[in-house]
Amino acid sequence: MKLSDKVIHRLTLYHNILVGYMEKNISYATSPQIAALLKIDASQIRKDLKLLNNDGICKVGYPVVELKQSIEKFLGFIKKKEAFIVGAGNLGMALAKYDNFELYGFSILALFDNDPLKVGMSTNGKEVFHISKLENLASRLNVQIAILTVPRKFAQPVADFLVKSGIKYIWNFSPCVIEVAEGIQVWNENLIGNFLQFTINHGK
Amino acid sequence: MKLSDKVIHRLTLYHNILVGYMEKNISYATSPQIAALLKIDASQIRKDLKLLNNDGICKVGYPVVELKQSIEKFLGFIKKKEAFIVGAGNLGMALAKYDNFELYGFSILALFDNDPLKVGMSTNGKEVFHISKLENLASRLNVQIAILTVPRKFAQPVADFLVKSGIKYIWNFSPCVIEVAEGIQVWNENLIGNFLQFTINHGK
Repeated sequence: MKLSDKVIHRLTLYHNILVGYMEKNISYATSPQIAALLKIDASQIRKDLKLLNNDGICKVGYPVVELKQSIEKFLGFIKKKEAFIVGAGNLGMALAKYDNFELYGFSILALFDNDPLKVGMSTNGKEVFHISKLENLASRLNVQIAILTVPRKFAQPVADFLVKSGIKYIWNFSPCVIEVAEGIQVWNENLIGNFLQFTINHGK
Repeated sequence: MKLSDKVIHRLTLYHNILVGYMEKNISYATSPQIAALLKIDASQIRKDLKLLNNDGICKVGYPVVELKQSIEKFLGFIKKKEAFIVGAGNLGMALAKYDNFELYGFSILALFDNDPLKVGMSTNGKEVFHISKLENLASRLNVQIAILTVPRKFAQPVADFLVKSGIKYIWNFSPCVIEVAEGIQVWNENLIGNFLQFTINHGK
């Protein structure tokens, strides 16, 4: 099944909300409550949750724990994905600390950099290795995903190196479009594009 | 005109590519070249660029400088937007250094934090102020946009504080959904949702 961007976007937001409800020991969530938080229509939420074969209990709502688990199962959160971060600058470090990824079965195993001052540091239990170790570790740990957080001018040469090292999926946070061979998948994270969409459509 | 997420996403990617071409002193870009970089169909690119009333020159392509400017004008990049970053941790610092925002007319004026060790620091020419200064500075500088990069547990109380301080637009990078009053706009940046979409639809 091919899911649209918007459905996945909303399901992960519902998931965030459910995690918050669990922290507050709330057992049931209703579609109007979620709708109010996200400023969308409650019927949209019911429609999305029908995709998961989840029906709420009339006047009570959806059981929080079960619904959270069924979103995880549906989106494959429970299928673990492991990745390296390449570029241990502020953004790389921030993503290494972003514990929310783990909730989605997405684990950052290590960071890589070519700066000797950064090599050997560790953040959130994740060590920074010299970039020359990447090929070997990718192969031994069977890691195929790299999160690219190097400055713009290094993005293309580092991407070339990653592909040579066996990386198949690149999540590119560098503000430039990189060129890769057939069979390699790149997701260009487009922070400013997301936000422009929001400001343009809300009249700022 | 209401633009779809996908059109804005693609236009900003074309813009990134054109910036790269300018750096390499390339004068013309063709739709098949751009298509190959993004692995999309060239006809899609021509269709998008028609929105800007830009036609390429047959067998020569689009003039790079003019096309870049016309994307900027079209997406309102040249209408300056000014913002504060709230939370001077790794992610806040990374975004303060993300010079690409400036290309899109989006300026970060300052950062705010409640940690006395961070107050007074400065990164990329932007100073970290104590959070207690935010209301006054927002009003004097007429800043209505805040980029929220605090840990999950502080997101809601800090968002409440921002709204009380006159902020109208919150770009929320905290991995939780925040509740705001009517009339306040929140864009929940959903990093993991974006990436899940990519991995799900590419079979990882």
